[in-house]
Amino acid sequence: MTTEQDAITGAEARVRADDRAHVFHSWSAQALVDPLPVEGGEGSEFWDYEGNRYLDFGSQLVNLNLGHQHPDLIAAIERQARSLATIQPSFANDVRGELARLITDVAGERFSSVFFTNGGADANENAVRMARLVTGKRKVLAMYRSYHGNTSTAISLTGDPRRWPNEPADGSVVHFFGPYLYRSAFHAETEEEETRRALEHLEQTIVLEGASTIGAIVIETIVGTNGVLVPPPGYLAGVRALCDKHGIVYIADEVMVGFGRTGDWFAYQAHGVEPDLVTFAKGVNSGYVPLGGVVISKEIAAAFDERAFPGGLTYSGHPLACAPGVATFEVFRRDGILERVKDLGERIVRPTLEGWLESHPCVGEVRGTGLFWAVELVRDRETREPLVPFNASGAAAAPMGVFAKACKDGGLWPFVHFNRTHIAPPLVITEEELVRGLAIVDQALTEIDALIG
Amino acid sequence: MTTEQDAITGAEARVRADDRAHVFHSWSAQALVDPLPVEGGEGSEFWDYEGNRYLDFGSQLVNLNLGHQHPDLIAAIERQARSLATIQPSFANDVRGELARLITDVAGERFSSVFFTNGGADANENAVRMARLVTGKRKVLAMYRSYHGNTSTAISLTGDPRRWPNEPADGSVVHFFGPYLYRSAFHAETEEEETRRALEHLEQTIVLEGASTIGAIVIETIVGTNGVLVPPPGYLAGVRALCDKHGIVYIADEVMVGFGRTGDWFAYQAHGVEPDLVTFAKGVNSGYVPLGGVVISKEIAAAFDERAFPGGLTYSGHPLACAPGVATFEVFRRDGILERVKDLGERIVRPTLEGWLESHPCVGEVRGTGLFWAVELVRDRETREPLVPFNASGAAAAPMGVFAKACKDGGLWPFVHFNRTHIAPPLVITEEELVRGLAIVDQALTEIDALIG
Ligand SMILES: Cc1ncc(COP(=O)(O)O)c(C=O)c1O
Ligand SMILES: Cc1ncc(COP(=O)(O)O)c(C=O)c1O
Repeated sequence: MTTEQDAITGAEARVRADDRAHVFHSWSAQALVDPLPVEGGEGSEFWDYEGNRYLDFGSQLVNLNLGHQHPDLIAAIERQARSLATIQPSFANDVRGELARLITDVAGERFSSVFFTNGGADANENAVRMARLVTGKRKVLAMYRSYHGNTSTAISLTGDPRRWPNEPADGSVVHFFGPYLYRSAFHAETEEEETRRALEHLEQTIVLEGASTIGAIVIETIVGTNGVLVPPPGYLAGVRALCDKHGIVYIADEVMVGFGRTGDWFAYQAHGVEPDLVTFAKGVNSGYVPLGGVVISKEIAAAFDERAFPGGLTYSGHPLACAPGVATFEVFRRDGILERVKDLGERIVRPTLEGWLESHPCVGEVRGTGLFWAVELVRDRETREPLVPFNASGAAAAPMGVFAKACKDGGLWPFVHFNRTHIAPPLVITEEELVRGLAIVDQALTEIDALIG
Repeated sequence: MTTEQDAITGAEARVRADDRAHVFHSWSAQALVDPLPVEGGEGSEFWDYEGNRYLDFGSQLVNLNLGHQHPDLIAAIERQARSLATIQPSFANDVRGELARLITDVAGERFSSVFFTNGGADANENAVRMARLVTGKRKVLAMYRSYHGNTSTAISLTGDPRRWPNEPADGSVVHFFGPYLYRSAFHAETEEEETRRALEHLEQTIVLEGASTIGAIVIETIVGTNGVLVPPPGYLAGVRALCDKHGIVYIADEVMVGFGRTGDWFAYQAHGVEPDLVTFAKGVNSGYVPLGGVVISKEIAAAFDERAFPGGLTYSGHPLACAPGVATFEVFRRDGILERVKDLGERIVRPTLEGWLESHPCVGEVRGTGLFWAVELVRDRETREPLVPFNASGAAAAPMGVFAKACKDGGLWPFVHFNRTHIAPPLVITEEELVRGLAIVDQALTEIDALIG
């Protein structure tokens, strides 16, 4: 071993030792995790201390829209750090105001202002608070198969198993079924049918829960972690109409899909609707500094003109977080990020994934838009039985472990959830990297084909 | 006007315009606020665009323990930004592990690991979650006159008026009275009596709420925003004993007092007790990057060795936030910060404030420790009638407005809450600045003396 290798091994060992002894990890049994020490990253890749490089096909937690270590974002952080790292929310600050303006400018006519938070969970908490106060109605409807964050109201909104051990938290949340044609809760066979029946179901839920008790409906515009479920045409317009009819605030959770993931600034823009409140985080500054927020309609903002908004946090509108947000807008515009997301999504990802429907018996469905796709793995294409059961862990989840290992061995870090892999690389991924990454996934799928025989 | 002045006026006008049009402010009626555009800061001062400089006697929101733009913290941020701005929580990362180790090392024997969050509210949310899961008991006791954050469980824990418009949020919180000798809820006349009676009250509350239903007691070690209420000797030891007796997790909220505010790493260390969970934020990195967390006892951490902890967040253990945290430890040790806090507090602040009890009829009580003090303003020292009523706003709060204006005119930005001003400057304040700042407050108090005649 050379001295240089020794030093690297020493560094890695130290990182591992500190981590195992002192870092308590999210969503984990602490003795059962073995976190990979990561040394660095650049663009669409990151690497460990042993020199293994991985194409980042999940953009970390789908936050790294501009990739690892984007020079413009890093420069913006350094500049802001040297100028003014932080100042409290009750003052006016240049980058805080500028970012709020840039966001409201692209969000649409309906919106005037932004309440900044630290991440997605507290964005949803504060959006729900606003909706409850302006309507005077406390109940909130949210979807099964959704994730909205880990604080009490946000985890109650969540419609996946992460909610279960935390119940009851916010007792005023009711879950309903959203559209998901491949596994339709409504026995629908076409998109039109799915839209119509899902809206009927939602209106029945509103009527039976009592429109007079419901302050808000919270929907991930495209359901993220729970499946990249793109709503069929007309669904979100139907939600908007139901909200208008029943005096309900429409909250769009765009924490995962906002800021270009789908090729638009916000995903609702491809669906011809404007929500009343939009929550965001992640892509706003690629998560280089914790930042989230709520984009607020003029109407709801005006309700707090004379009446105090009863919410706040120490780091609301943090300058160091806002600076790379402002830079994000500059990069998006200069480099035509939205256009390239649409182009890469339609020209490369869609045809490749649709090809897998032919070439891989284990692929049950592919769906998505922009650089946001899901591949659903099944044991049997006829019955659509998932490759692993819902919420499987341990041995039951092993086949997805085989898939993940094949990807990693090939040099790609996949995003895996239940029986799906998601294709969500940084929006700056080069065409060569995208093609190479898809080939690695293709190869891993071949192993699963063999597994299911 | 010179061109340079023109440019400044232009910049200030732009900041103000963006802010008023697009930034939605915490805890405010949006049309009634007029946020000061701040241009920069250094050490214990910040300044606006018109060249007015203010001594920052509230350390922003009592987070700026190492002052504005501390060169070591800025350098740490720049270095980390260039090396690796962010990586997801499920990997191992050098600065994340190092900071977790540094924190557990100073927290005490009882502790082994740290769960990182973005701020104080989500730290408290996750601490309560841990306590509920390890005890299997859901109810949480918290104090009146407390603040714990703005997400649903955190605002429910809160024992001040910020909770009111948000009720009911987490329905499993019950409030009790803590020690506050100057306005004793227990008709006590001495510290010993206050301690004994406050503990009796707490135990009665436990018995009547049912020890078998109570998972945690959450206490700000020294109540912060609600009054710098230093617990009398023996109180926290009594709380510890009650928690042990009844199988309750003791959570210390050290978001405001941790990391040197009182002259110790953690404020509980001056009281001879160790809690089971300690929540922190603010001072850990002076808020230069959003960061908070929970320090976890070995016993509670072990309960999640084989069983998954059901909580997490995208930015848990954010490297860019951890780097200035590591630098904070270096600066504290190199510059003897803890020692100077104790010295300045006892040698300068205490005698000066105690002098005001003699010289200012409007000063009812002074109390505190380290660089964390409250001055309670009263109309009448006999009756102890507060200068403004509890939770006063508008005209009723005007006398405190007079006090604040006098401070600002004198070149000091005061921390004002209800009928109190708090003395909580950066821990790096020079002796000259501290003396100058106290003289400005002294002067402002003279105006209040005149006001109450
Ligand atoms: C759609 C959605 N909403 C909310 C959140 C919560 O965001 P955070 O982890 O920043 O609290 C997430 C995180 O993955 C998300 O995907
Ligand atoms: C004692 C205490 N706990 C919790 C919080 C909440 O912290 P944050 O505003 O970062 O959520 C605060 C904030 O002032 C605090 O003082």
